[in-house]
Amino acid sequence: MKTLLEATKFDSNGLLTAVVQDAETGEVLMVSFMNKESLERTLETGKATYWSRSRQKLWVKGEESGHLQTVHSIHLDCDGDALLLRVHQAGGACHTGHRSCFYREVIDHGNAFREQQDLVFDPDEVYRRRREE
Amino acid sequence: MKTLLEATKFDSNGLLTAVVQDAETGEVLMVSFMNKESLERTLETGKATYWSRSRQKLWVKGEESGHLQTVHSIHLDCDGDALLLRVHQAGGACHTGHRSCFYREVIDHGNAFREQQDLVFDPDEVYRRRREE
Repeated sequence: MKTLLEATKFDSNGLLTAVVQDAETGEVLMVSFMNKESLERTLETGKATYWSRSRQKLWVKGEESGHLQTVHSIHLDCDGDALLLRVHQAGGACHTGHRSCFYREVIDHGNAFREQQDLVFDPDEVYRRRREE
Repeated sequence: MKTLLEATKFDSNGLLTAVVQDAETGEVLMVSFMNKESLERTLETGKATYWSRSRQKLWVKGEESGHLQTVHSIHLDCDGDALLLRVHQAGGACHTGHRSCFYREVIDHGNAFREQQDLVFDPDEVYRRRREE
């Protein structure tokens, strides 16, 4: 039987798509990307670690906000290019203060959005506090 | 307020990532890709329609297998480059006969997989039948 790293198919940029789901509620929290090193770190530490395409560096989710994702289970899809991470999410996954990044529901046949109003944290407060530490 | 097409950010290949979730159970079924035309078709028809990167053509999910995805709701993420589709899935989402494409759970610290054994359809039978129609 193959190992995870043997079964994964990284794309031309060396990345896999990672879908992140709340292990308790089933809510889809975010989509991110992993390279080989971030996947190895995630397996070793049990803390979801991604590859930031914008910053071009490893990114332990929550390292700035404190909103870590503790991995409950990892699942690989049929063609080996996407992972599903079921996690215990501290605080919220989204930098906007929402629990999930998918807080905008499409309504009116694509002509408008209905936004979830409830924030689980104040992003100005959380990110300012962390910067001052 | 922006429309969906104004708020989406397609990548350099003109694609968005689409995460597909079972609207009844919350199970994550698959990850696929959409271009502008497939998103417009999905909004118009209510049937999940993707862009097949391997075949380079529009792909109505289930057009061959009969396992259509009827869209319950669509959600856009914070940075506009990923969609969450909550769908009513007929049959199974995966061409292997599994309900979800994420039927392989990583175990033993990444050294092995535990596969879900239960198939919701026989892929040989379903795809042969469709080819013969």
